[in-house]
Amino acid sequence: MAVTPPFLAALRREPTTHTPVWFMRQAGRYMAEYRALRERYSLLDICAEPDLAAEVTLQPIRALGVDAAIIFADILLPLDALGLGLRFAQGEGPVIERPIRAPADVAALPAVEAREVLGNVGAAIALVRAALTDGPPVIGFAGAPFTVASYAIEGGSTRQFIQVKRFMYEQPSAWHALMERLVEFSVGYLTSQVEGGAQALQIFDSWVGVLDGADYTSYVLPHQRVLFDRLRGLAVPTIHFGVGAAHLLQLQRDAGGDAIGLDWRTPLDEGWAIVGHDRAIQGNLDPVVLFAPWPEVERRIDAMLDRAAGRPGHVFNLGHGILPGTPVETVRRVVEHVHARTAR
Amino acid sequence: MAVTPPFLAALRREPTTHTPVWFMRQAGRYMAEYRALRERYSLLDICAEPDLAAEVTLQPIRALGVDAAIIFADILLPLDALGLGLRFAQGEGPVIERPIRAPADVAALPAVEAREVLGNVGAAIALVRAALTDGPPVIGFAGAPFTVASYAIEGGSTRQFIQVKRFMYEQPSAWHALMERLVEFSVGYLTSQVEGGAQALQIFDSWVGVLDGADYTSYVLPHQRVLFDRLRGLAVPTIHFGVGAAHLLQLQRDAGGDAIGLDWRTPLDEGWAIVGHDRAIQGNLDPVVLFAPWPEVERRIDAMLDRAAGRPGHVFNLGHGILPGTPVETVRRVVEHVHARTAR
Repeated sequence: MAVTPPFLAALRREPTTHTPVWFMRQAGRYMAEYRALRERYSLLDICAEPDLAAEVTLQPIRALGVDAAIIFADILLPLDALGLGLRFAQGEGPVIERPIRAPADVAALPAVEAREVLGNVGAAIALVRAALTDGPPVIGFAGAPFTVASYAIEGGSTRQFIQVKRFMYEQPSAWHALMERLVEFSVGYLTSQVEGGAQALQIFDSWVGVLDGADYTSYVLPHQRVLFDRLRGLAVPTIHFGVGAAHLLQLQRDAGGDAIGLDWRTPLDEGWAIVGHDRAIQGNLDPVVLFAPWPEVERRIDAMLDRAAGRPGHVFNLGHGILPGTPVETVRRVVEHVHARTAR
Repeated sequence: MAVTPPFLAALRREPTTHTPVWFMRQAGRYMAEYRALRERYSLLDICAEPDLAAEVTLQPIRALGVDAAIIFADILLPLDALGLGLRFAQGEGPVIERPIRAPADVAALPAVEAREVLGNVGAAIALVRAALTDGPPVIGFAGAPFTVASYAIEGGSTRQFIQVKRFMYEQPSAWHALMERLVEFSVGYLTSQVEGGAQALQIFDSWVGVLDGADYTSYVLPHQRVLFDRLRGLAVPTIHFGVGAAHLLQLQRDAGGDAIGLDWRTPLDEGWAIVGHDRAIQGNLDPVVLFAPWPEVERRIDAMLDRAAGRPGHVFNLGHGILPGTPVETVRRVVEHVHARTAR
C-alpha cells in the first residue's frame, strides 16, 4: 500500500513520520548548478523550455533532500501570456513592458486559454513527476490576483503601490474586471498544472501586506475566495501564502487555502491560532537567518518547532524565498535537522 | 492665560477643541514652493542652513493650516555627522559612503557632540519658533537607532535587510555597542533640538517592521527603552512611530513614547486597544488615499475618526509620509475636514 508522502499528509493535518520541509525559491541563484545553467539560458528561457524547467526543479531535490519539489516558473508568466510583455532588467527585477493604466487596457486583454499559452509549465511538471516516481510530491503555483495585478499596473516592483491603489480607488469596475480576468486565467493555468501532475498548489500573494483589512475585504477577498473555491474542484491541497500580512491572517483564512503560509513576522503558534487549527500552517523561518552561524540557525529552528508543538499540519518552510548568497550547506543542514528533531 | 495648543493637549490625552492634524513629510516635493527652492539648493544644503530649513518648515504651515510644524531635516544627518558620509543619488535614495561592516567600524566612530556637529538643526528650530509665536508647536525628531543602524550597515535603502540582520546575529557585541552609540548621539541631538525650542519629539522607526518580536526584544527594545527613558528628562511629549509594525505594537509601547504612531495597516481602534488607552495615538490614513477622488478620501477619514470615537488623545496623521505627487489641494481639504468634523 502506498504511503502518503509527509508533505501531502501534513497539508491534510494527518500525523507524519517527520515534519516535511521545502523552501520557497529552493531552486535558484544560491545554487551553483542553477548559476551554471543561467550562464547559458535566461530565466525566461528556462521557464519556457520544459526540459530546462524540470532540470532546475530537480536540482534542490538532489542536493537538499527536501520533501516537496516546486515547479520552476515565475508568477509573472501569465502577464506575458496575456500580451503585456515581460522582461527582467539587469538588477532591476521584472519589467512589464505594456502596463495596465486604464480601463481600456483591461478590456483589451486577449481571450487566451492558459492551457495553450502556458502549456509548457504543465509539460515541465509531467517531466518532474516522471523523474520522481518514488520521490517527493510536486507543487504547482501561481501568483495571487492582487499581486499579479500590482505588477501589471505598476509595471514592475514598487515600494509605494501608488498606481495600483489609485486604480482600485478611481476605477473600481475595471479593477474588479481585471481581478476576475486574472482569477479566470489562474484557474485554467493551475488546472493545466494539476493535469500535468501537480499534487498541491501554492498561491503567492507576496504584496498583499500593503493593503489594510478594509481594502483587502473590498478589492481582493471576493476574488481570492472565488479562486480557492474553484481550485477545490481540482482535488489537490492548496497553500495560501502572503508576506507582511500579519494584520490580514483572518481574512486570508476566510478567502481559502488548506494551509496558510506565514512570513517570519508572526510567531508560528500565534499565527496558527489566528488561522485556526482546522487549517495546516506553513513556515516560517526568516530567510536571513540562514546566513547566521549554525548554532543560531539551530536555536531558531528549535524555537519554531516548539511553537508547532508536534501538532499535525505543520509544513516547515521559510517566511519568504531563499535569498541569493544563502550557503547551500546551511540549507541542507536545516532539512536534516528538522527531519531528525521531528522524527516520530 | 495661554491655552495649550491642541496638538500638545492631545499628546497628553486632554480634551481639545478639535482633533489636531499634521502630516509626516508635510514639507516636501509635493509642494511647488519646496520644488522651487530645490531648484537652487540640494536637500542637504537645506538641512544645513537654518534659514532654509526654517523656510521649508514654514511652507506647509502657511499652505495647509496644520496644527504642528515639524522641523525639516533628514533622519540620516547623524550618520553624516558621525563621519560615514551621506549623499542622495539621483532616483536611488540615500547612499552611505562608508557603511559599517565590521566591529572595528563601530569602534572607530568619532566622539562627537551632537550639539556641535548638528547644532544647525536646533538653530533652525529656534527660527521657526520665532516665526510662530502664536502659531502651532514645533516637533523635533530623530530616526530610531534600529532604523539608523540599518542605513549605516546596509549603506542605503534595502528590501531584504540581509547585512543588518547578519551583523546582529554574527556580531552581537558590536551591534549593541552601535545601538548604544546611536542612542547616546540621539539623546544629545534631541536635547539640542529641545533647547532650540522643539515642543515635542518624534522617533521614526521606519524599518523596524522587518524584525520579528523575538529579534526586536533581543536587539532593539532595550536600546529603544533607554532612549525614551532619557528623553523623559527633556519634559516634552514623545511620539514613537513605526511602519509595518502591527506585530510589534505591544513591544513598541513597552519601549516608550507618550503617543504611538500607527501605519495604515492597523485599524486605529484595534491599534489603540493594543497600545493601551493610557497612551495617545497618532495616525493613520494610507498616504495613497490622498490620490483618490475627494468623496473616497472623506469617507475614509470619517471611518477613521469614528474609530477614534472622540476619545481624547488622537493626533490625526497619515500612516507614513506624504508621497511626491500628492495633490496639495486634497491635503488642505483633509485638514479643513478633520477640523470641522471633530469641532467640539
